[in-house]
Amino acid sequence: MKKFEEKTVSSETLFKGRVISLQVDEVELPNGKTGKREIIKHPGAVAVIAITDEGKMIMVEQYRKAMERSLVEIPAGKLELGEEPLRSAERELEEETGYGSAEMKHLISFYTSPGFADELVHVFVATGLTKKENPADCDEDEFVEVIELTVEEAQRFIEEGKIADAKTAYAVQYLQLKNALEH
Amino acid sequence: MKKFEEKTVSSETLFKGRVISLQVDEVELPNGKTGKREIIKHPGAVAVIAITDEGKMIMVEQYRKAMERSLVEIPAGKLELGEEPLRSAERELEEETGYGSAEMKHLISFYTSPGFADELVHVFVATGLTKKENPADCDEDEFVEVIELTVEEAQRFIEEGKIADAKTAYAVQYLQLKNALEH
Repeated sequence: MKKFEEKTVSSETLFKGRVISLQVDEVELPNGKTGKREIIKHPGAVAVIAITDEGKMIMVEQYRKAMERSLVEIPAGKLELGEEPLRSAERELEEETGYGSAEMKHLISFYTSPGFADELVHVFVATGLTKKENPADCDEDEFVEVIELTVEEAQRFIEEGKIADAKTAYAVQYLQLKNALEH
Repeated sequence: MKKFEEKTVSSETLFKGRVISLQVDEVELPNGKTGKREIIKHPGAVAVIAITDEGKMIMVEQYRKAMERSLVEIPAGKLELGEEPLRSAERELEEETGYGSAEMKHLISFYTSPGFADELVHVFVATGLTKKENPADCDEDEFVEVIELTVEEAQRFIEEGKIADAKTAYAVQYLQLKNALEH
């Protein structure tokens, strides 16, 4: 899909960080004029809707420096270089929550901020959860607390602003829809 | 919510653009060690789930330079300086689709990429849609095509990858859940 394509006139990378890079592209617009696009490049990520046998969701609370507050989110993390999303989802679930899963299925992949970033999040649904005896640790700069929420508790966390990110809102709505279709 | 707070040791703004800025913060981690956080600052945005009297969703197809492809998304756009989200939602709906709405209700607000950006999207549901006679225009560097999709068509667009962003996936699931609860 290339409708209204913006051809690159020039592209300059202004920052290369540990996680993201920033580039500014000069583009030719469909009407022949030129414009600037500020673009963040990101390696991509995975997120896991982990559902216990009792129908609860496993979430993690962690501090998010960009917002200067902590958020309750579904387990998630960046893809490592060359890593398959499925493997990454299994790894993040284990590192952040200590759980392994009997089944890990791809649900959807979506761009989080298509207006300025290419970050693509692959969302998986994990069931058949069991606590691992010696789970792998989180990254050394990562601190999380694991909590389990029913779908009603998760909905209340959204209303209270404790859950406030797109992938987790999507996950809660997914479980609400699943429950609605089953009943 | 300040659990696992990361105190700022120093903060450097490396780029200030038209839409986003980039800063790198040195932080003190909960274990006393220090770390770096790469952070994108964004003015915030609105998105509109616009539902026609026939239950179709109004969407726009536009080119997204970060992905070098076009995407079909719900109408959305950045908050202008000092603008109320509700007013912004009405403005973006009119500019991008030519529609006005009898009712515009706030549904949810979520951070799109909490790992590296502070972008907060305020999502509204618009109903009672009517075509405006002389709608305001899009921004001069914005080119969009309006399409109407049933929820089944939107679901197929997700499977085909034509719809591939978080807010629009959330919107489609919202309508699926609404329909499931009504039937």
